[in-house]
Amino acid sequence: MKVQIGISNRHVHLTDEHLKKLFGKNYKLENVKDLNQPGQFVSNSKVMIKTLKGEINDVRVVGPTRDYTQVEISRTDAIKLGLNPPVRKSGDLIGSSPITLIGPRGIVDLEYGCIIADRHIHITPKQKEVYGLSNYDKVTVVLQGEKGGTIGNVSLKVSEESYFELHLDTDDANAHLVRNGDLAIIIEGEDL
Amino acid sequence: MKVQIGISNRHVHLTDEHLKKLFGKNYKLENVKDLNQPGQFVSNSKVMIKTLKGEINDVRVVGPTRDYTQVEISRTDAIKLGLNPPVRKSGDLIGSSPITLIGPRGIVDLEYGCIIADRHIHITPKQKEVYGLSNYDKVTVVLQGEKGGTIGNVSLKVSEESYFELHLDTDDANAHLVRNGDLAIIIEGEDL
Repeated sequence: MKVQIGISNRHVHLTDEHLKKLFGKNYKLENVKDLNQPGQFVSNSKVMIKTLKGEINDVRVVGPTRDYTQVEISRTDAIKLGLNPPVRKSGDLIGSSPITLIGPRGIVDLEYGCIIADRHIHITPKQKEVYGLSNYDKVTVVLQGEKGGTIGNVSLKVSEESYFELHLDTDDANAHLVRNGDLAIIIEGEDL
Repeated sequence: MKVQIGISNRHVHLTDEHLKKLFGKNYKLENVKDLNQPGQFVSNSKVMIKTLKGEINDVRVVGPTRDYTQVEISRTDAIKLGLNPPVRKSGDLIGSSPITLIGPRGIVDLEYGCIIADRHIHITPKQKEVYGLSNYDKVTVVLQGEKGGTIGNVSLKVSEESYFELHLDTDDANAHLVRNGDLAIIIEGEDL
């Protein structure tokens, strides 16, 4: 079956505490664009992310605030920063890479929190059943085109509140020359 | 069968004429490191590549000079430069993207010459036969690992003088988390 592709550029999720520290006491994230996942939005708030070896400016904060602070980057970004972050699911942060966030009003030094997000598909429990994927936590997906191929280790991220969508980072998208809104094809479940 | 991976960062090939124009009349490329492909080498000569929308510094010239000038970049680079270069074999340049090269002694405006290099395997005619690939111009290859998968449209670039090696651009390498010298697996030929 087909699934729409959503490409995630590097971005940051913040706790309430870190939002205040970076942007000031009464700062609120403004929703400038709804993302497809219900409740999630792009803000116009940006931070610098920095290590001893490099820095990247204007990294967008995705709202709303969460109960963890997380920096999601691509391997291309990681090379620029001299980091080797693990591939992780959102929120699975223990032992991930250290990084510093710099906002207009303050600095946050994270002991860990920087990851390469795993490839994943947002899916409801009902869709998982209907699409015959009940027995799988992961699937293989075909990306079509001149530099197409298949990608493995695509997690099924199951939630009642989700919009059916395959999330890829910019490296996966650029390697395969796919764009936001293109369709990919789920070809098989991967055994646990 | 297995094949070693060689990752090509963005680079430039120059004609004798363009080398002179960019670096001066009596300039010679110096071999600072042999590449695996016989006769090819990394030089310490660098140019800026530039469009109206962006520029990238310190792009290495690969020697020796050729009978065409060619700029090989990744899609990630292309986005930075506001270009949409075609995926092409080396030397197949008609209709590819325009770009400007800036060296220490001069400027070269190319009407075309900027490409995303196709994925390809350097192979001798003998190896092609021995490996059972005589009927194919392209193959599918498995890249293993946490962000592994298969890549299609991998051309077989046949030459008597070649070192058996899979050349990928940095987007393909970074998307799949593979490194120089890793092994990939050729799984099938693709029909012409």
